Amino acid sequence: MAVYTHLAAERLAELIDAYDVGSLVSAKGIAEGVSNSNWLIETTGSDGQGARFILTMYERRIETSDLPFFLGLLDHLAAHGCPVPRTIHDRDGALWRTIDGKAVALIEYLPGVSIDHPTPAQARSVGQALARIHHAVADFPQSRTQTLGLAGWDRTINDCGAEALATIDPELPDLAFGELSWLAGHWPGGLPHGVVHCDLFPDNVLMLGDKVSGLIDFYFAASDFFAYDLAVTHAAWCFERGGATFRTDVSEALLAGYQAERPLSSVERDALPVLARGACMRFISSRADDWLNTPADALVTRKDPMDFARRLQFYAAHGDELFAQGA
Amino acid sequence: MAVYTHLAAERLAELIDAYDVGSLVSAKGIAEGVSNSNWLIETTGSDGQGARFILTMYERRIETSDLPFFLGLLDHLAAHGCPVPRTIHDRDGALWRTIDGKAVALIEYLPGVSIDHPTPAQARSVGQALARIHHAVADFPQSRTQTLGLAGWDRTINDCGAEALATIDPELPDLAFGELSWLAGHWPGGLPHGVVHCDLFPDNVLMLGDKVSGLIDFYFAASDFFAYDLAVTHAAWCFERGGATFRTDVSEALLAGYQAERPLSSVERDALPVLARGACMRFISSRADDWLNTPADALVTRKDPMDFARRLQFYAAHGDELFAQGA
Repeated sequence: MAVYTHLAAERLAELIDAYDVGSLVSAKGIAEGVSNSNWLIETTGSDGQGARFILTMYERRIETSDLPFFLGLLDHLAAHGCPVPRTIHDRDGALWRTIDGKAVALIEYLPGVSIDHPTPAQARSVGQALARIHHAVADFPQSRTQTLGLAGWDRTINDCGAEALATIDPELPDLAFGELSWLAGHWPGGLPHGVVHCDLFPDNVLMLGDKVSGLIDFYFAASDFFAYDLAVTHAAWCFERGGATFRTDVSEALLAGYQAERPLSSVERDALPVLARGACMRFISSRADDWLNTPADALVTRKDPMDFARRLQFYAAHGDELFAQGA
Repeated sequence: MAVYTHLAAERLAELIDAYDVGSLVSAKGIAEGVSNSNWLIETTGSDGQGARFILTMYERRIETSDLPFFLGLLDHLAAHGCPVPRTIHDRDGALWRTIDGKAVALIEYLPGVSIDHPTPAQARSVGQALARIHHAVADFPQSRTQTLGLAGWDRTINDCGAEALATIDPELPDLAFGELSWLAGHWPGGLPHGVVHCDLFPDNVLMLGDKVSGLIDFYFAASDFFAYDLAVTHAAWCFERGGATFRTDVSEALLAGYQAERPLSSVERDALPVLARGACMRFISSRADDWLNTPADALVTRKDPMDFARRLQFYAAHGDELFAQGA
């Protein structure tokens, strides 16, 4: 949550002039994104009526070679009627430009707020929006290898090591290594797949009332099972109080909303308990890595890996029953 | 530069409902202000046409008992045609509300960007806007004691101590203690005074092209000499490269712009070289204090006190000649 780079207004005005969006009126650095700097930009608009955009500067983690994929995906989904922000192309048609050696993209601004405590109606709308994306990617011509899959979690946890993991929580090493073994023996194959979001937490969803107005931050998107994306979303939305409380009403609404648009096959439904445990492992591994390698007082707030350890234990105990009923 | 508090969208929507501004459409935490958290808020507007506001949450340094002064000052200046953001009153007429134990105010959103490298035309506009404020406060009925005056600088520098100051720069202790003695013997009395901004750096001025569109962040405003406020603004605008380069063209334009609206008396003009050295001492003292008491990796970027030591040395060497010609 930060703006990592100071961008002089004079440089920004020049940049905006490379797009057919009118001239710069206002620019506010916004506290969103952990890998990027973002500004909320107001311009006079190409029609003089005023317009707003998000300017993203790619600071870390994201490779410029991945930008045609990430930005092309936004355009593809927007063209298919999904509520995602279009990429604004510059006057030469380019998806991104370079300023002071860093890649920047101008992105459509979408209304809506990110909510903390979803209602069932909101969860239903999220499920529907997710399923529509899974339909819309059918003819998306690009793909990106999933680097944060089972092999990636295993590598991260092993790089952390049992000793360091134990400094986070004494139970974490056994839980993580045990779970990785179990997942390796149970991970499904051959499920319907395509390019999926993989990080659809509430802060990546904009809502107006009960309806999704925007899905944002596709920078973890990769080729994976649709049902895994649903499992990630389920793990991200259906718990409160750090994973300690399961929201049955939100779970049922999310799964019903998804299936109203894209009914799960029986194979997918049977795989959900395993996929949900994998989704938890994905965030346990990255959060443990961040926890051990981020100074306690750094700009980025560390997230507790144990939040997802609790979710994992819930899925291990109740997943079969839960997804058999709800999905 | 940070958002210190997470404010759930649900709480924010309730808060916005206390104002006659329509309902919440969007909220983005913005990276502005060092003592406050700020959000750029979009609502449906009281007329359904959409509207934008800045929501400020007072986190540190600012006492709630000072809010009638700060927020009343904005209203007074806006009513007198100065380009400052009005305070939006809630449905009961209150200037601020309390949320989760913290005071928050909804403030008018003004267009414009903060520039890094002013042109003379921009500096002229800043001088004019400052002088208009000095006229407009004539009938402002409130006042606030200047706590960051000569006595305050002296206390801060003595609290830091010579030993600690030397860790910033070996020359700083002699410079600071010597200057405080000199200022104590030369500080003027009886100059025209009123409530002044006292912190009009480029990042507190919004500009559209060559014109000031907004003066913001009045949270250091206090009763002091008008000419001191002009001296602070001069020290803040007329140097580049950390105080190493003096911009004669910007200086002349700033002083001319100011005097086009409010000509200085000969007594004020004669006092400017001393006031400018005082303005430098004000920022040397607060920056030294921050430097010594802020962890190097904290959220707030530390500013180098030596930037203003260089400015001070410039004013000591050239102030008499400079202000005799330019003012």
